[in-house]
Amino acid sequence: MTDTLAVTDGRVLTPEFDVIRADVLIDADAGEILDVAPDLAGDADETLDATDSLVMPGLVNAHGHATMTLLRGYADDKNLEDWLQEDIWPAEAELTPADVGVGTRLAAVELIRSGTTAFADMYFHVGEVVEAVREAGLRARVGHGVVTVGKDEAAAREDFAESVAVAEEYDGAADGRIRTAVMPHAPHTVGTEYFEEFVPTVREAGVPLHFHLNETETYIEEIDAEAGVRPTAYADDLGLLAEDTFVAHGVHLDDTEIATLAERDTSVVHCPASNMKLASGMAPVQDMLDAGVTVALGTDGAASNNDLDLFDELRDAAMVGKLAADDAAAVDAETAVRMATAGGAEALGFDSGRIEAGANADLAVVDLESAHLTPEHDLVSHLAYAARGSDVRHTVCDGEVLMRDREVLVLDEEDVRERAQEHAEVLVARAEE
Amino acid sequence: MTDTLAVTDGRVLTPEFDVIRADVLIDADAGEILDVAPDLAGDADETLDATDSLVMPGLVNAHGHATMTLLRGYADDKNLEDWLQEDIWPAEAELTPADVGVGTRLAAVELIRSGTTAFADMYFHVGEVVEAVREAGLRARVGHGVVTVGKDEAAAREDFAESVAVAEEYDGAADGRIRTAVMPHAPHTVGTEYFEEFVPTVREAGVPLHFHLNETETYIEEIDAEAGVRPTAYADDLGLLAEDTFVAHGVHLDDTEIATLAERDTSVVHCPASNMKLASGMAPVQDMLDAGVTVALGTDGAASNNDLDLFDELRDAAMVGKLAADDAAAVDAETAVRMATAGGAEALGFDSGRIEAGANADLAVVDLESAHLTPEHDLVSHLAYAARGSDVRHTVCDGEVLMRDREVLVLDEEDVRERAQEHAEVLVARAEE
Ligand SMILES: [Zn+2]
Ligand SMILES: [Zn+2]
Repeated sequence: MTDTLAVTDGRVLTPEFDVIRADVLIDADAGEILDVAPDLAGDADETLDATDSLVMPGLVNAHGHATMTLLRGYADDKNLEDWLQEDIWPAEAELTPADVGVGTRLAAVELIRSGTTAFADMYFHVGEVVEAVREAGLRARVGHGVVTVGKDEAAAREDFAESVAVAEEYDGAADGRIRTAVMPHAPHTVGTEYFEEFVPTVREAGVPLHFHLNETETYIEEIDAEAGVRPTAYADDLGLLAEDTFVAHGVHLDDTEIATLAERDTSVVHCPASNMKLASGMAPVQDMLDAGVTVALGTDGAASNNDLDLFDELRDAAMVGKLAADDAAAVDAETAVRMATAGGAEALGFDSGRIEAGANADLAVVDLESAHLTPEHDLVSHLAYAARGSDVRHTVCDGEVLMRDREVLVLDEEDVRERAQEHAEVLVARAEE
Repeated sequence: MTDTLAVTDGRVLTPEFDVIRADVLIDADAGEILDVAPDLAGDADETLDATDSLVMPGLVNAHGHATMTLLRGYADDKNLEDWLQEDIWPAEAELTPADVGVGTRLAAVELIRSGTTAFADMYFHVGEVVEAVREAGLRARVGHGVVTVGKDEAAAREDFAESVAVAEEYDGAADGRIRTAVMPHAPHTVGTEYFEEFVPTVREAGVPLHFHLNETETYIEEIDAEAGVRPTAYADDLGLLAEDTFVAHGVHLDDTEIATLAERDTSVVHCPASNMKLASGMAPVQDMLDAGVTVALGTDGAASNNDLDLFDELRDAAMVGKLAADDAAAVDAETAVRMATAGGAEALGFDSGRIEAGANADLAVVDLESAHLTPEHDLVSHLAYAARGSDVRHTVCDGEVLMRDREVLVLDEEDVRERAQEHAEVLVARAEE
C-alpha cells in the first residue's frame, strides 16, 4: 500500500491556465500526482490544507550558483567584469567545500520558502551541493563549472574532466531528484581545444550541457575576434547546441542566433534581475518565444540579484520583456508564469511544472488572503504582478512536504542561517587578507 | 506630561546611512522623534521591540491613485492609451464615493503592511480619501485630479475649481497629517486656458501643484504640436514649476528639461514599475540626480503595478536606473533607499524620511531574521536588493503604532478585504454593462 497526500480545498492552476476548485491527490512514495478532482481528501493518509489558497506548480529556478548566497550584498553596483575580478572571483577562490554545503543550504531554505521546487546549479565542490539538495528534498540539475582560461593545459584538462566525472557520479542521486549536466562556464572562458576534446564524448553519452551565452556585448566581441562568428554559431559548430542543452542569459541575440537556438531546440534561461543589476542589457524574450525557443527563468547567483525569489524574477521578466519589445502586450502574465514553471521544467528536463495526473508532485500553495492579492479579478495576473515569495504557505517536492504553513520541515532554518553568517564572515576575511 | 513610545534594541539607519545600535524615543502626542541613543527604554510609556530588526524611515509613496487597488489585475498587458480608454476610464466613470473609501482603505492596509507611512493621492471624491487616511493613521498629500478635455467650458471650469476648493478644505485635516495640492492631471488633459485662469491664484495662495509629466512620447508630441515646445517648457511658461511642485513620471526628459526642473527645484516622482508595465520607457534617473533634481518614488495606481510595495519600487528604481544609464554603478543601493524615504518626504513637503530628533515619528521596523536577508554584509544593500514589504514587522506614523508584529491595529483588515472584493465586483459589473 502506498502513502498518499491530498492537498485539499484549494483552487488549482491547470496546465491550460484555468483555475478550478479541486483537491490534488499525490502518491507520496512515487512522488507523483495521481489525480486532480473534487473531494479526494477522504482516502489520503495525510492532508495539506489549501483553503483560500492557489495550488500552482512549484517554481523552477533554471540558472544559478546557490553558494553565492554567502556573498549576497558583499559587492553591489559594479559592472560585471569589475565585479567578477575585484570581488567575486577573489572570494570564490577562498571557498571551502564546507562553505558550499552551508551556502547551498541557505539557498535551499530561501527556495523552499518562496515556492521553488527545482533548480539548476553550476558550481564546484558539487558533492557538497548534492548532499545539501538531498537533505533539503529539492529537485536539481547540478554540475561542475569549467573554466580553462588562465590555467595551464594539464589543469584545464583536469577541470573539464572533473565536470564530466561529476555528471556521471551524481546523476540519479537523492532518489532520482538529482540529475546532472556538464557545465563549461562560457564560450569565452573555455578554450576551443577543450570543447573539441570533450564535447563529442559528452554528447554520445547523452549528458546535457549548460553554459552562459551572450551575457554581454564584450563577451560576444571576444568570440567574434577569435573565431570570426558570433557565439551561438561558434557553439553550434562545436556541437554544443541540442535539445537537452540549456544556456543562461541570451541577453544580446540577433535574429540568426534566435533561429539557431529554435532549430536546435536549445532552451534559454532568462535572468532579468541579474541582467539589470549588472547593466548587461535586456534579453529579447518575446522574440525568442515567437521563434519557438523554450524560455525558462533563473535568478543567477544571489550576489547579482540579490535574492532567489522566482516571483520577483517572473515579474521582472514580464516588465523587462515589455520594455525590450516596446510593447505592453509582450510577455504577458500567463507567459511569465509559464516560463517560471513549465518552461523551467522543460529546460531542466524534469516532468514537473504542471498540476496534472502523472506529473511529478512538485507544487507551491499560495496564500490568497492578503491585501495585496485583493480583489480577485484574475489570479494569473496576481501571480505575475502582485504575489511574492512570502505568499507561499506550503511547498511540496517529489510528494514530500518541505514547508507546511510557512515552517520549513526539512532543514533547521535557524541553524542554517547562523552557520551561513559565520562562514560568510570567515570567507570574506580570508578573501580580503 | 506627554505619552512616549520607545522603539528598543534594534539597529537604526541614520540620515547619514550608518547603521547604529540605538533606541528611538518618540513623543507620541506630538508625533515627533525626541532622541536616538542607547538605553532610552526606561522612561517610555510604551515600547516596541526591534530586536534583530532594522529601524528605518517610513517609506514614502509619492505618486498614486489609492482607489485603483479595486482594479488590481482587472486589465493587464495593454499599452497606456488602450488600457485607459478601453478599461480604466470606463470603470472609473462608475466609481461611487463609497468605492473610493473602500479602495483607499485597501490601499492603506497594503501601505502599512509594507512599511509605507506617507503617500500622495490624486483622485476624486477626496472627502472619502481623507476619511480613510484619518482612520488609517497615515500621512498623505491629497488632491482632486482635474481633466478638462472632453468637457464643455462650464464643466471644465467646475472641475478645476473643485480641485482648488478641495485643496483649501482638507489642508491640515487628521491632526495635520493631511496636506493638499491642486492636481491638474497632465498638460495634455487640461486646456491651456484653465491653467491660465487658475494657476496664478493657486501659486499666490502657496498651494502645491502635482501633475503627470512626460509619461510617454505621444503625450510630449501632443504638447509640441499644440504649443511648439516640450511639456516642461510649456509647464514652466504657465508658472506650474516651483519648489513645492512635484510631477509624476518624467520618463522622457531631454537635458534642457532636466535643467529646468533642477532650476525650479521641482521634484520628480519616478514610477519604474508602472513605466515598465505600460512600456512607457525608462526614466533618466541618474541624469536627474546628477543635475540636482530631487527624485522620489511612486507606485502609481495598483492597476499598472500591481502592488503598492515600495520595496519593489526601490529595487526596480535601482535596476532600471542602471539599464537606463548603461552603467551598473548608477542608482546605487543607498540612492534607491534615499529616494524612497528622504526623497519622497522632500517631494511631498513632510518633515519625515529620517530617524533623527525633531523629525516626524514615521518609521518602519524591518525583520532581519530571514534566509533572504542572510548573511549581513551590508544592510543598505539588503534594503535595496533583497528586502520586501512582508519583512516589515512594525509601522509607526506620527508617533502612533499602525502595525505591531505584523498585525494592523488601525483598520479591520478582514473587513476591508471583504468590502473591497464586493465593491470591486459590483464596480466591474456596472462598467461592463
Ligand atoms: Zn550565472
Ligand atoms: Zn498616475
